Amino acid sequence: MTGDASGAGNVGKPGLARSPLAPDRFPDLPVIDGVRFAATAAGVRYANRTDLMLVHIAPGAALAGVFTRSSTRSAAVRDCQAKLAALPGMSESGAAFFVNSGNANTFTGARGAEDVVRLSQAVAKAADLPAGRVFTASTGVIGELLPRDRIEAAIPALIGGLDASGAASAARAIMTTDTFPKGACAEARIGETTVRIMGIAKGSGMIAPDMATMLGFVFTDAAVAQPALQAMLSEAVETTFNAVTVDSDTSTSDTVLLAATGTAGNAQVKGADTPDGRAFAAALHAVMHDLAIQLVRDGEGATKLVEIRVTGAVSRDDARKVARSIANSPLVKTAIAGEDPNWGRIVMAVGKSGAEADRDTLSIRFGDILVAENGWVAPGYKEADAAAYMRGQELVIGVDLGLDDGADTVWTCDLTHAYIDINADYRS
Amino acid sequence: MTGDASGAGNVGKPGLARSPLAPDRFPDLPVIDGVRFAATAAGVRYANRTDLMLVHIAPGAALAGVFTRSSTRSAAVRDCQAKLAALPGMSESGAAFFVNSGNANTFTGARGAEDVVRLSQAVAKAADLPAGRVFTASTGVIGELLPRDRIEAAIPALIGGLDASGAASAARAIMTTDTFPKGACAEARIGETTVRIMGIAKGSGMIAPDMATMLGFVFTDAAVAQPALQAMLSEAVETTFNAVTVDSDTSTSDTVLLAATGTAGNAQVKGADTPDGRAFAAALHAVMHDLAIQLVRDGEGATKLVEIRVTGAVSRDDARKVARSIANSPLVKTAIAGEDPNWGRIVMAVGKSGAEADRDTLSIRFGDILVAENGWVAPGYKEADAAAYMRGQELVIGVDLGLDDGADTVWTCDLTHAYIDINADYRS
Repeated sequence: MTGDASGAGNVGKPGLARSPLAPDRFPDLPVIDGVRFAATAAGVRYANRTDLMLVHIAPGAALAGVFTRSSTRSAAVRDCQAKLAALPGMSESGAAFFVNSGNANTFTGARGAEDVVRLSQAVAKAADLPAGRVFTASTGVIGELLPRDRIEAAIPALIGGLDASGAASAARAIMTTDTFPKGACAEARIGETTVRIMGIAKGSGMIAPDMATMLGFVFTDAAVAQPALQAMLSEAVETTFNAVTVDSDTSTSDTVLLAATGTAGNAQVKGADTPDGRAFAAALHAVMHDLAIQLVRDGEGATKLVEIRVTGAVSRDDARKVARSIANSPLVKTAIAGEDPNWGRIVMAVGKSGAEADRDTLSIRFGDILVAENGWVAPGYKEADAAAYMRGQELVIGVDLGLDDGADTVWTCDLTHAYIDINADYRS
Repeated sequence: MTGDASGAGNVGKPGLARSPLAPDRFPDLPVIDGVRFAATAAGVRYANRTDLMLVHIAPGAALAGVFTRSSTRSAAVRDCQAKLAALPGMSESGAAFFVNSGNANTFTGARGAEDVVRLSQAVAKAADLPAGRVFTASTGVIGELLPRDRIEAAIPALIGGLDASGAASAARAIMTTDTFPKGACAEARIGETTVRIMGIAKGSGMIAPDMATMLGFVFTDAAVAQPALQAMLSEAVETTFNAVTVDSDTSTSDTVLLAATGTAGNAQVKGADTPDGRAFAAALHAVMHDLAIQLVRDGEGATKLVEIRVTGAVSRDDARKVARSIANSPLVKTAIAGEDPNWGRIVMAVGKSGAEADRDTLSIRFGDILVAENGWVAPGYKEADAAAYMRGQELVIGVDLGLDDGADTVWTCDLTHAYIDINADYRS
């Protein structure tokens, strides 16, 4: 309803206003030679919006993927995992990513798995690909059957509409509760060759709002050996998509797929731990970091983007435990929504995290403001300064445990009335 | 402000309406011979309310305690733990519990610890007790110093006001964001003797709202050997206070203290695993269960009391992981607030719990309504029935994992706008 008025355009769930943390505009994404996009409207759940995306990848691309660890993960996720396991490395045939929004095809029993097979086969046949190279993802409501016939009927139109510059439309077609489409890009130098990386994503968090899930699709024209590609993707996910949280809930369908076409003509990147590998991995990380932060900016009901930097832990695992405990605490998140520099709740969240911590070596900062140290409020702390800082839209909360050099950073958003409005709504 | 109008009376934070899930009235608690209560107003944080409680326990009582596991726990908790460790068993001297609301005396550095010592000594001197038998607890805002002088000045009035039937006033004095005082009682037969158990508690959850914390004080006239008393208390806490959650946050000050005066004259209960021990433990459990459920009924913003029953897990630990994952999921809690039988979110929460689970053996019930089984919606399921069920105030969500016989139950409440109103308020 407010989609047009707010400038969000083709949002998945009518009535959601564009996030106040949204970037000004969708970025200009580079064309990746060998990758073409199409989007169309199949009426999966809502009328008057696109809800199917097809990406066609030319023969010879290396593919990699990372998926949700949920034990109730979807049929599409299981299918993608099986296909990646069965077909590692380069392939002489092309590949496709086929995604619908509006319905997650999760907890839909044997019929759900059958739908994945049948839709993969339909795309494979129409695009002249082996079914084992068609990867599907579905995002939306859980427990309802896909409208398979309507989706199948839309495949020819998708094939006909494939376009190398269609990434922006594709980014819109995969949205659910997202209020803006998400895209990012970067370049790297491999020897004398410039390679391009670009990606699109959807999701209002890490997280499983009824109509959301985290999906990311990343493309590069670099030539990268498949094992190195998978290693670099897995590594980058840890500090990007796995380092953001909106509400601590984990989707049954989270999927990140990466295709490297090799069309840039660089000398193939053989390993992650080579100069070329490090250059590529840094650019890949930049794209995925950008997309992950956009997910938090579009966190359901978010009005503030919050970076939680934890240092001084006995290990990186412990630092992440503390960062996540703070980022997921409803009391911390509501305090941030209320612009309250309530550092007592940070102390509470450190205490409950399960990480090693000592009250008397702990220090807490809001931005550059030292709030607490040595088990007490800092001598020069003025609450008025911290309150002024909390009125900003982008906040950094720093916690130093003062024990060792374990560090980690997590990004989150505040918990507002709008989150409850979005999620307490009856689905129909 | 609305305290009187709502019938809640002496609530800690002005403006909170009495929970719609509150019991009709405070129960008639029995007098425990050897236990006397007093309450007074010292102006710790708010005017026009009582905020200090003193309980005096006659010589010869056995004492037991269970405390928060937070690594940033308060000075009072550390002091109680040290005193219980140093003085196990019966004592010839009396004992006291001294509690303030409005200020948690947490993260207050060396001065906070010094205040605990000084207030314990002041109570000990005024009541003619060893300081090692004075146990203190503080609940309220974190990071601010106690108004020690005002509290100390109120001690003589407390001593003068001690009264065996003062438990109801005491239950009011320890409230913070609570909207009603909490009390419960039960009896047990030990041989030919009837023993009484009664307790009071405060807290809006397990949980650490800014102004809350879980405190429980339980008293019995039974004669119980101290090791058995501690064992039975620890066991009962697991399935009562540790089985409720409002918002997944853990206080730095959670404290449960139990005093057994022995004044009933029963043959001393020697062990938990004797007929007398089992009779006593059952009654103790009943009192603590009643108090724990009252905490959830007073969960901040709660409009529904929800019991999460998990069965069929490979272990009790796994069952608890699943139950807690469901109970703490913001998406499940907002769906319940919206009276939406959104079982897809239950599937999500099972999947993210980390417990062993198999989609195809999972079944879900709302009350007696079978919603899903064998990895899909149940054949006879009608969403209208489930939607009607969700409009009730007290709900049971059943999840059977279909793997083995591990089972556990957790109680929680919904997540509503009122939770955000209460917690996003600036503290001042």
